Amino acid sequence: MAMAIKSNRFVHLCFLLFVVSTVLLQTTDGRSWKKRPLRQPCRNMVLYFHDVIYNGKNAMNATSTLVGAPRGANLTLLYGKDNHFGDLAVFDDPITLDNNFHSPPVGRAQGFYFYDMKNTFSAWLGFTFVLNSTDHKGTITFGGADPILTKYRDISVVGGTGDFLMTRGIATVNTDSYEGDVYFRLRVNITLYECY
Amino acid sequence: MAMAIKSNRFVHLCFLLFVVSTVLLQTTDGRSWKKRPLRQPCRNMVLYFHDVIYNGKNAMNATSTLVGAPRGANLTLLYGKDNHFGDLAVFDDPITLDNNFHSPPVGRAQGFYFYDMKNTFSAWLGFTFVLNSTDHKGTITFGGADPILTKYRDISVVGGTGDFLMTRGIATVNTDSYEGDVYFRLRVNITLYECY
Amino acid sequence: MAMAIKSNRFVHLCFLLFVVSTVLLQTTDGRSWKKRPLRQPCRNMVLYFHDVIYNGKNAMNATSTLVGAPRGANLTLLYGKDNHFGDLAVFDDPITLDNNFHSPPVGRAQGFYFYDMKNTFSAWLGFTFVLNSTDHKGTITFGGADPILTKYRDISVVGGTGDFLMTRGIATVNTDSYEGDVYFRLRVNITLYECY
Repeated sequence: MAMAIKSNRFVHLCFLLFVVSTVLLQTTDGRSWKKRPLRQPCRNMVLYFHDVIYNGKNAMNATSTLVGAPRGANLTLLYGKDNHFGDLAVFDDPITLDNNFHSPPVGRAQGFYFYDMKNTFSAWLGFTFVLNSTDHKGTITFGGADPILTKYRDISVVGGTGDFLMTRGIATVNTDSYEGDVYFRLRVNITLYECY
Repeated sequence: MAMAIKSNRFVHLCFLLFVVSTVLLQTTDGRSWKKRPLRQPCRNMVLYFHDVIYNGKNAMNATSTLVGAPRGANLTLLYGKDNHFGDLAVFDDPITLDNNFHSPPVGRAQGFYFYDMKNTFSAWLGFTFVLNSTDHKGTITFGGADPILTKYRDISVVGGTGDFLMTRGIATVNTDSYEGDVYFRLRVNITLYECY
Repeated sequence: MAMAIKSNRFVHLCFLLFVVSTVLLQTTDGRSWKKRPLRQPCRNMVLYFHDVIYNGKNAMNATSTLVGAPRGANLTLLYGKDNHFGDLAVFDDPITLDNNFHSPPVGRAQGFYFYDMKNTFSAWLGFTFVLNSTDHKGTITFGGADPILTKYRDISVVGGTGDFLMTRGIATVNTDSYEGDVYFRLRVNITLYECY
């Protein structure tokens, strides 16, 4: 009889714990909004991609090209004024596992970027990692602001397909190397929180 | 003994409730698809951003500029035909807490829009709110169609970083004010349903 | 008394099952990442959209137009070299329930695409289905790489509004028909996994 009661109490205790944890999850942080605890990442990858910008002389090697520019600028060279404000480029860049441009690519980074600030170097990126290696088959699509001069900047993962179906997460990008207006290499640390 | 049975029944009842609620969640609405109940928003914010369009005379003040246009148009002025169809602009607009252009900005709205209908004013937007104030540090990225002449239009929140890591939700946009083809101000009511 | 113990055991068994299933969900697949089981789709739709590309002669009928192109190309015709690399188009295409261009449209596909590979036909798409019929009212926004010559390619659903509020999922696209550089029709099989 005592155990039966205990059992009944245990059930109630479980229910109580559930209610309490639910309430805790809804507790505000003093700023009148409710945060949920972040679960562990389900995946982390570091990849590099290499952008060789067309400059009128490197048609064979260039992996990106200007396709839009503001009035007064041209499509051969990045705009000399206003920190390239308004220059729009399309790219198809090799992705590698390390920082060596000549390493065998594991996929292509395809998308566009444009410079969007007059008083500093800043860009906006929309692109997809098309991965096709023994380790990964699928795509991850990214979008967001890229304040180029900041060492580490976060860009949103907005979708994915294949191995990365509907994934969500964040990419921390840093400029690993660059050569004037002709080459830059981005190191991308991708942390995913939803994997199916 | 009776209580033990009751306890056992309670466990079964819990399980039954779980099954029933699961089934209910999967009930179709007569259109052969299954909806989930929408949870409460975790955050709501109203912000304004101000777009000063370059028109050939306001280079100092302009916060956006044309970078693409269809054949026959130019990059100085919005295309006079077809409701600007094909005009593509890049912007870096101040965000304010109220509708005053001169209020201290709490961040920048950075991205692009293009006009995409011949027979009416309509646009497509891809942009990021880069917020950097005592209240918010982080980014929210938006994307979607903007039927400009509709009073309130919904645009998707597609990602976020920092305070808005992986957020999801909706932005209801309305044109708060405009002056010809030189200035417009959008009021953005952001409702977020996932906050970490 | 025996039943009371049994009941108690049942509670523990439930708890054990919960722990085991939680652990199982976190089991790696040998590649050091954790996958979650994919739930059933909440919705599936097949829609078609029709793109009539401006070519200098079809201004009346064209539903898309070039707004950007690389140096050496023009905005009247798709670039004759490099598989159109760098051509950027804006579109406002009718969406139909079947593959007939003249069927009553159920909405508009609005967005942009650009060609992004030199050595093959490949594109990147960002667009929104603006649906306005008795069956669907709302928008679905898509983004991602489109390797045109692959029969079926997956593009991410990155957001939605109205009936498709915050939806997530995948669109499997195939080129249902095309006529040179003037017309193409995409069949889009949309599978959604989150419906509110």
